[in-house]
Amino acid sequence: MTHYERILLTGAAGRLGTELRKSLAPLARTIRLAARSGFDDLAANEEQAIFDLADMDAAIEATRDCDAIVHFGGSSLEASWQTILNANISGSYNIYEGARKNGVRRVVYASSVHAIGYHEVDAHIGVDAPVRPDSLYGVSKNFVESLSRLYWDKFGIESVCLRIFSSFPEPTDRRMLWSYLSFADCCRLVEASLTAPRVGHTISFGMSDNRIKTVDNSGANHLGYTARDSSEPFRAAIEAKTAVPDPNAAATKYLGGWFCELGHPDDAE
Amino acid sequence: MTHYERILLTGAAGRLGTELRKSLAPLARTIRLAARSGFDDLAANEEQAIFDLADMDAAIEATRDCDAIVHFGGSSLEASWQTILNANISGSYNIYEGARKNGVRRVVYASSVHAIGYHEVDAHIGVDAPVRPDSLYGVSKNFVESLSRLYWDKFGIESVCLRIFSSFPEPTDRRMLWSYLSFADCCRLVEASLTAPRVGHTISFGMSDNRIKTVDNSGANHLGYTARDSSEPFRAAIEAKTAVPDPNAAATKYLGGWFCELGHPDDAE
Amino acid sequence: MTHYERILLTGAAGRLGTELRKSLAPLARTIRLAARSGFDDLAANEEQAIFDLADMDAAIEATRDCDAIVHFGGSSLEASWQTILNANISGSYNIYEGARKNGVRRVVYASSVHAIGYHEVDAHIGVDAPVRPDSLYGVSKNFVESLSRLYWDKFGIESVCLRIFSSFPEPTDRRMLWSYLSFADCCRLVEASLTAPRVGHTISFGMSDNRIKTVDNSGANHLGYTARDSSEPFRAAIEAKTAVPDPNAAATKYLGGWFCELGHPDDAE
Amino acid sequence: MTHYERILLTGAAGRLGTELRKSLAPLARTIRLAARSGFDDLAANEEQAIFDLADMDAAIEATRDCDAIVHFGGSSLEASWQTILNANISGSYNIYEGARKNGVRRVVYASSVHAIGYHEVDAHIGVDAPVRPDSLYGVSKNFVESLSRLYWDKFGIESVCLRIFSSFPEPTDRRMLWSYLSFADCCRLVEASLTAPRVGHTISFGMSDNRIKTVDNSGANHLGYTARDSSEPFRAAIEAKTAVPDPNAAATKYLGGWFCELGHPDDAE
Amino acid sequence: MTHYERILLTGAAGRLGTELRKSLAPLARTIRLAARSGFDDLAANEEQAIFDLADMDAAIEATRDCDAIVHFGGSSLEASWQTILNANISGSYNIYEGARKNGVRRVVYASSVHAIGYHEVDAHIGVDAPVRPDSLYGVSKNFVESLSRLYWDKFGIESVCLRIFSSFPEPTDRRMLWSYLSFADCCRLVEASLTAPRVGHTISFGMSDNRIKTVDNSGANHLGYTARDSSEPFRAAIEAKTAVPDPNAAATKYLGGWFCELGHPDDAE
Amino acid sequence: MTHYERILLTGAAGRLGTELRKSLAPLARTIRLAARSGFDDLAANEEQAIFDLADMDAAIEATRDCDAIVHFGGSSLEASWQTILNANISGSYNIYEGARKNGVRRVVYASSVHAIGYHEVDAHIGVDAPVRPDSLYGVSKNFVESLSRLYWDKFGIESVCLRIFSSFPEPTDRRMLWSYLSFADCCRLVEASLTAPRVGHTISFGMSDNRIKTVDNSGANHLGYTARDSSEPFRAAIEAKTAVPDPNAAATKYLGGWFCELGHPDDAE
Repeated sequence: MTHYERILLTGAAGRLGTELRKSLAPLARTIRLAARSGFDDLAANEEQAIFDLADMDAAIEATRDCDAIVHFGGSSLEASWQTILNANISGSYNIYEGARKNGVRRVVYASSVHAIGYHEVDAHIGVDAPVRPDSLYGVSKNFVESLSRLYWDKFGIESVCLRIFSSFPEPTDRRMLWSYLSFADCCRLVEASLTAPRVGHTISFGMSDNRIKTVDNSGANHLGYTARDSSEPFRAAIEAKTAVPDPNAAATKYLGGWFCELGHPDDAE
Repeated sequence: MTHYERILLTGAAGRLGTELRKSLAPLARTIRLAARSGFDDLAANEEQAIFDLADMDAAIEATRDCDAIVHFGGSSLEASWQTILNANISGSYNIYEGARKNGVRRVVYASSVHAIGYHEVDAHIGVDAPVRPDSLYGVSKNFVESLSRLYWDKFGIESVCLRIFSSFPEPTDRRMLWSYLSFADCCRLVEASLTAPRVGHTISFGMSDNRIKTVDNSGANHLGYTARDSSEPFRAAIEAKTAVPDPNAAATKYLGGWFCELGHPDDAE
Repeated sequence: MTHYERILLTGAAGRLGTELRKSLAPLARTIRLAARSGFDDLAANEEQAIFDLADMDAAIEATRDCDAIVHFGGSSLEASWQTILNANISGSYNIYEGARKNGVRRVVYASSVHAIGYHEVDAHIGVDAPVRPDSLYGVSKNFVESLSRLYWDKFGIESVCLRIFSSFPEPTDRRMLWSYLSFADCCRLVEASLTAPRVGHTISFGMSDNRIKTVDNSGANHLGYTARDSSEPFRAAIEAKTAVPDPNAAATKYLGGWFCELGHPDDAE
Repeated sequence: MTHYERILLTGAAGRLGTELRKSLAPLARTIRLAARSGFDDLAANEEQAIFDLADMDAAIEATRDCDAIVHFGGSSLEASWQTILNANISGSYNIYEGARKNGVRRVVYASSVHAIGYHEVDAHIGVDAPVRPDSLYGVSKNFVESLSRLYWDKFGIESVCLRIFSSFPEPTDRRMLWSYLSFADCCRLVEASLTAPRVGHTISFGMSDNRIKTVDNSGANHLGYTARDSSEPFRAAIEAKTAVPDPNAAATKYLGGWFCELGHPDDAE
Repeated sequence: MTHYERILLTGAAGRLGTELRKSLAPLARTIRLAARSGFDDLAANEEQAIFDLADMDAAIEATRDCDAIVHFGGSSLEASWQTILNANISGSYNIYEGARKNGVRRVVYASSVHAIGYHEVDAHIGVDAPVRPDSLYGVSKNFVESLSRLYWDKFGIESVCLRIFSSFPEPTDRRMLWSYLSFADCCRLVEASLTAPRVGHTISFGMSDNRIKTVDNSGANHLGYTARDSSEPFRAAIEAKTAVPDPNAAATKYLGGWFCELGHPDDAE
Repeated sequence: MTHYERILLTGAAGRLGTELRKSLAPLARTIRLAARSGFDDLAANEEQAIFDLADMDAAIEATRDCDAIVHFGGSSLEASWQTILNANISGSYNIYEGARKNGVRRVVYASSVHAIGYHEVDAHIGVDAPVRPDSLYGVSKNFVESLSRLYWDKFGIESVCLRIFSSFPEPTDRRMLWSYLSFADCCRLVEASLTAPRVGHTISFGMSDNRIKTVDNSGANHLGYTARDSSEPFRAAIEAKTAVPDPNAAATKYLGGWFCELGHPDDAE
């Protein structure tokens, strides 16, 4: 018995979207892939919706007949205010309005460590800690966390906001020894978020079972996510090729890493 | 070296009592089985005490020469007020009076998830959370938790109150995917409660190592209980034959499950 | 505009009931006085219901046509188990059943410091601290706190449980310098409990504005109770006639005072 | 010695802006009034800046030569998404960019109870509780709370976010008996926010000293704000003309009051 | 009835000792003044003990026949390690050994804000926060707080450790607007510490009722201390003659003020 | 790439020092062994510094050219005040002064369970719990925990304070069934402390992965320490030869075990 009829996956052409496209297959009869340009390799259980998230009508239309959304679209890095405003703030609003108008039951949203990037690594914050974004990108993640809370409390749409740390093919620097989220664990986390019996509005950190642990994710234990991967096999190689970090550098001190050392994106030229 | 001379096991003919009868054997020279009707299969290390818990004199007599009590007797389901009052409230008072009068050192009591059944599954309560019973049955569990606290603080009798979730031969519905306590884990939990060096007055949740975790049992870590079983092997079969739950149903939302949807027992006829 | 049509006051002939009889008058058109023997001084706005709390039918009948109950009846001191069981446990169950069957909106219950009497005076517990009764009397208070929680969560009847400390005409010993609740403040607390816009299930400590404060009542701030009296005017006289207490005596160490030094009531003869 | 050279007051023509215009006078040599249309009653210490908050260039220009901003502009009620997006989200971003580019030291921002409107009145949340907005308006308040946190952590601009409850000439309904913030207390709160020695990023609730207290503002005690007014003098008149509230209505249960009962603003026609 | 027979006051010739000498008079038949040089103005109820705190035998001798000690002696400022070691560490150990050997019931110790001086002013720490000393002086205060905890837990000697903020004739800078403890309030605090019925081991902050509050002293409410003075009458004069502080300076950011900006005392020459 | 150039190991001839001497080898080019008498088995990567910790000049000299210190020297048991003062208090001060003067980056310090030995075993304290030493030895551990906090906050020297429980070749009594720290786990903990990217000032408990857990070490999760050993293989043998403990004995009740039952060391003769 599949959990859903049709899942909309935004950001389907992105780094994580490409992974999720495969892992979501068993959970719904149809996966609708959303991106800004078309796919030429649609599988039998896939369909596509090609549009810009900032286009409200198109975004709402893309959610029609879906009962779940995995919202990984929008800018995945710090960007100019105009980009953040259009792609992440307006774009996510549009997706939630689609969910509301089309009766979607549950949304899984790619929030980010950068929503709380200015907390210190030894503070061991839980999922309920006050927000401390490290970038405009992080502010937009807080916006969607707030918006989705409203859509649960007032409109009854469940959401899981996943504060993903570093999800890459493998860890490549010393920070990722603790912040790494393997692709396989990321897919497990999304699957758990989609299948847990009740999520209401849940915020969860997203990390693999790395040896060093910097946050307390127990507030999301009802998702039933269990990490199976770890950065440990990569430790020796990383330590051999990278310097011991300065413990007082912002990139070492704060959860957000080098995002905390970025200037304002609108100052660049 | 056995821990105890003689353990009184109430509810010895019940579902869990039948399991405990076997697992308690190594912990005491003698196991005294208490039930309302006699056993015809007493082992060499067993003796029996046949009486009704509501009979104070008999209850006190049954505790004579015991140094520990595993109190699993009384109604194990929602029941009429009169039944709850007699079997669970008066009955447990009688057992504790027996413990006090006969110098019993430690009592392990079968409390229940229904003592805190109206807490939400995503609240991740600890063992110190305020009580929120979901039934008269749950109220009676709170009563014994309170009474046993008094008997520790004032009379020096140690107690462990085990808030057992769903202890059955195997999980049979989706809620039990997170609430399941295998019989073997239940026996391990009782053994840990009887052998931990100091328990004072301890409240512990009782669940197996299921993937979804809904409570925080760290406040009972001094018992040394380690779950070894899990509901996970039963997941596929259960999901195949049961519907996706409504996340807003009381039975999904609250720890107590369908007890939260029961009406008042005295209204039925 | 009065808040209520008819308030049932149990324990109306008792020490506090006698005070409340006066202070409740402005809050309802009719005050129904419940006691075990009749009143010969009924005022125009008063009526009486003479019965024993342990008589379920009579208790239910007494609640008919009431929209609020101020439940101060039952034993107000440590007593034999049989007395506690009948007057406080069964008696309160009967009152709550009356509330449920007759559509009472709100109950204000005289709980007691003895519900948490074994907490230490310098622990500054809040209203959510785990129960630690100091007597069978205290256990019965925990029972009603639990029962009323169920009747709110399942049956929608609001309750305020007032953990009254020492409500007497004036403080008479050194402990009462911090535990004193003047009659006037007690009446203010009951009035606040009856008129606050939403109480759900609220537990509140009951003390005057004494200089030494031993508990944190902020969890009940939504009641809007403001103490106006204090034990301070009585300090000099009390200190002059009483000895400096032993800080290690149970009666000094614990909130429950001398109740913590009482033996078991059923041992006396 | 005044604290500031020049304070920019946005929303200067609004209900609270009109009050603040007077109370800010002693704190700076010059008050610059920002609004969408001109003032014809400028005092000697006042100057004006007429612009729309959504106009980034104008907003930045308006902050030139200011060392503090009291940002009370934007929509002060639930509104369509487009209005919220332009006036509250983009508008506030523009003001903060002005602060960053022009070296403003401190911003006092009119956040709102509606940033946490879905918390229950008896939960007594502190200023660090997770956000639970009750409207798009509330979501925009969370956005600015998040943005201002970034501008402190990364750019060193101090902010005080004032979660104002009900600031009107006088309380007019039963909820305002606990949510009332008198104009004078509102001005005191802004003054304290501007003159406290260090605020970093502070969130403070804004209420008068009403008898019923529903939140815990101790996390903002370093502001040195002391309420002097209370709703109590208005109680009798309000209770006489309004009905006893239904404790289960969303407007009674939640801090946000009737905002919690509003539908989606874009559904209206 | 006096509380004590004989109180030993160390540091009796110091700034606070001089005040306490007067205020302690009603609490004991005899006040024994300890200092390094003799007093020429002994009152009838006074006697003196002239010795150096680092002299163990003399210190122990000075405590003979005392039932309480008010220990305000030792260095009251940052000093060289050798001075801190002798006067504050060894000196206080000697006093506690005297208390133990001579049966003293209670000690009131002048700890200091500098025991927790590196906590931030907007963190609102309680008395249980981890120590964060800002100087060797502060480390010595932590030492005595730890030592006195041992002497309570193991030897039954009660202690109150008063973390005094700024106790001077009047506030003289902007920090003292929140850190001021008037002499009269300081005396009230010591009196409360000596007369509260049970203190066990209590840590209390010491401040007057200043408008800006930077710590949470509720954990010491059982002392019954009520501040009556405030820095507010001094505000206008102080603000007129001192500059607005830099919110990022260590002296503004941390509770310890300018102690946080001191170098190591052994580096000076 | 090694983490350090030269690590100073104090207490290098002690029980744990002997183990650490081996395990530290891969972490630095040189290990400097500090003890009171010379080693006759120096390896190629080892050098020695022979001195008494109480000798400030020698201690400072010993830290020259080191970038890390593993400070396990001083008395490792309860001792006379004079011994504690010289070896543990002055001795540790000298080591920290050496660290400050010679630019050492990080110190790993052997604190002890006895720093918090009077907390109860079922209180499950975290690393931030208030100190409750059980001995003068424990007080000296609190002293260094405080001193190292100052040296981080003011002088930027990182420290990890390891509250080691029972580190012996194997567990030998029932308490050690929960307090055991194997030598191998102790070495892992020190290694993690030396190599974690940022420790600031960290306090960590030190125990193996024993079945019974009595403390919450999650506040030190950023160290990346994972225990691999357990007392469980020793359980049967220990239970066979030792009696069931009295749950009310101080040695059973408190974390510090039999240290809580020791008298004052200066009372012995």
